[in-house]
Amino acid sequence: MALSEFNLIERYFSSAISQRSDVALGVGDDAAIVTPPANQTIVMSMDTLVSGVHFSLETSAQNIGYKSLAVNLSDMAAMGAEPAWILLALTLPQVEESWLKEFSVGLAGLAEQYGVALVGGDTTKGPLTITIQISGFVPTGQALTRQGAKIGDLIFVTGQLGDAGLGLQLLRNNLSIVSSARRGFFLQQLERPTPRVDVGVALRDMASAAIDVSDGLAADLGHILEASHVGATIVVDDLPVADELKQMDERERLQLALSAGDDYELCFTVSPEDESAMREALTMLDCPVTCIGIIDVEEGLRLSRKNGAAVPFEQQGYDHFG
Amino acid sequence: MALSEFNLIERYFSSAISQRSDVALGVGDDAAIVTPPANQTIVMSMDTLVSGVHFSLETSAQNIGYKSLAVNLSDMAAMGAEPAWILLALTLPQVEESWLKEFSVGLAGLAEQYGVALVGGDTTKGPLTITIQISGFVPTGQALTRQGAKIGDLIFVTGQLGDAGLGLQLLRNNLSIVSSARRGFFLQQLERPTPRVDVGVALRDMASAAIDVSDGLAADLGHILEASHVGATIVVDDLPVADELKQMDERERLQLALSAGDDYELCFTVSPEDESAMREALTMLDCPVTCIGIIDVEEGLRLSRKNGAAVPFEQQGYDHFG
Repeated sequence: MALSEFNLIERYFSSAISQRSDVALGVGDDAAIVTPPANQTIVMSMDTLVSGVHFSLETSAQNIGYKSLAVNLSDMAAMGAEPAWILLALTLPQVEESWLKEFSVGLAGLAEQYGVALVGGDTTKGPLTITIQISGFVPTGQALTRQGAKIGDLIFVTGQLGDAGLGLQLLRNNLSIVSSARRGFFLQQLERPTPRVDVGVALRDMASAAIDVSDGLAADLGHILEASHVGATIVVDDLPVADELKQMDERERLQLALSAGDDYELCFTVSPEDESAMREALTMLDCPVTCIGIIDVEEGLRLSRKNGAAVPFEQQGYDHFG
Repeated sequence: MALSEFNLIERYFSSAISQRSDVALGVGDDAAIVTPPANQTIVMSMDTLVSGVHFSLETSAQNIGYKSLAVNLSDMAAMGAEPAWILLALTLPQVEESWLKEFSVGLAGLAEQYGVALVGGDTTKGPLTITIQISGFVPTGQALTRQGAKIGDLIFVTGQLGDAGLGLQLLRNNLSIVSSARRGFFLQQLERPTPRVDVGVALRDMASAAIDVSDGLAADLGHILEASHVGATIVVDDLPVADELKQMDERERLQLALSAGDDYELCFTVSPEDESAMREALTMLDCPVTCIGIIDVEEGLRLSRKNGAAVPFEQQGYDHFG
């Protein structure tokens, strides 16, 4: 069938075109018109997923739709922003009704959960590529950035590290250390990560710097260190990992926990005097948080054991063009 | 060479990362932070160009960079918005320094001309695809939309129609009606269209509806008619076309003027009592404008001659999935 591109988004994404009172004109004109709230800055981000690079050809359309938005929500989380509006650029080899319906279910479900409205976009013909641009709000001056980490600040991470990386390995091979009952958990962590938006908002007054873990903790924490002109030491015994990772040899475990991407947890720094207030704020959110190290003066990232002994580490963050 | 994706945008697009006082945090964090002006709504749009679909493999990187932004600026023009911020999602098969430099020259030159700042984006590996998301401002309630055309309104178009369509034909064949001296003009119209941003802003108080001509006048005017629940009659003798089109037979000429896309002129409607004020406002802008027809009550689009005789027309707007 020859569906016109003109109404593709209206046709398949009506459930994501949820009503927000700040959307004056949504999908269907040359552009959307939205009303920003007073006394807030706007936080804007854009992420692309490419078929065969960011997801495999076997990934379900629903999970692709989910993850396309999840990675963008995760950027809002890293800034402490409340997400509001998205635009969707969808490049498709052909119009396949069932694929589009499933994709939109995955996207719209997450959009509704976070109160996000799809306000516009573009559909084009070409190799499957999904770009979402997201905008959110944060009270002026309260956004979290990569820049504020101070010497002596504690380094925290939400959830577990390496789950998505293990999920990716499971797509390629069966691993005897993962039971069939647990297989689904790791694939879920890879394909349907939970963006930590509520944690990011709660951290606004607490964290000195924050980032989301998309390219691997070492690389992403590295961005904080670079932007803040500081260094850090991570205590490898404290890295929060699944039981399956604990059974691996250390080299393999550290590779997954530090260099595998796609966990979409938050990594952030907090001054020691703010730690207890931060922990109290996060208990309400049912999100585990673990202290994994400390910001120090020597530039770069070091690994150590609890007793202070150095652990060798070769950084290998995920780099599409590497 | 293995350039990291992390600094691709910072490295190649520093000239487009122009300073705007409303950009609190630009490229280089998880998201940009921008400060919207008071009493204005934000107008948001996003357009994708795919290699082999929206431009040929022979198109220069500089012209691809130019056009990626031009089509987005044109959406701002259609809304009467003043463009401000862009995010760039660039999917590339490989990092090729010379291509990236040329692409950024084309994009940054146009960005500077329109005072637009690149505030963020994403670079990924995959088939060449460029998505730009643009945001602009318009005083609350003054945006142009497709919805306000009234019966009796006059229909105008800026510039000439069909130039880009003829340019596309020239890429495929030599046409004897186009002299070698004029060939460059039509290719320029195709590859470096002028977004009518100043015209859009000037029309805020004048036009009852507006759209940019990206898919062909018939299709795009059709969107105004549909959104405004009205019909229209176009006087074919009044369509502004280049001398070369005037030499073609009528069927060919109308195909180019009405159904070829990519002209990025503005099509808008104005009530007869506002016509002279509109013409006066536009004289300052050095932009030709032509009355091509009238909004009437019968739904759909009709063509006629000056004497009122009907002209047969089969609509064939550009549809990527058609």
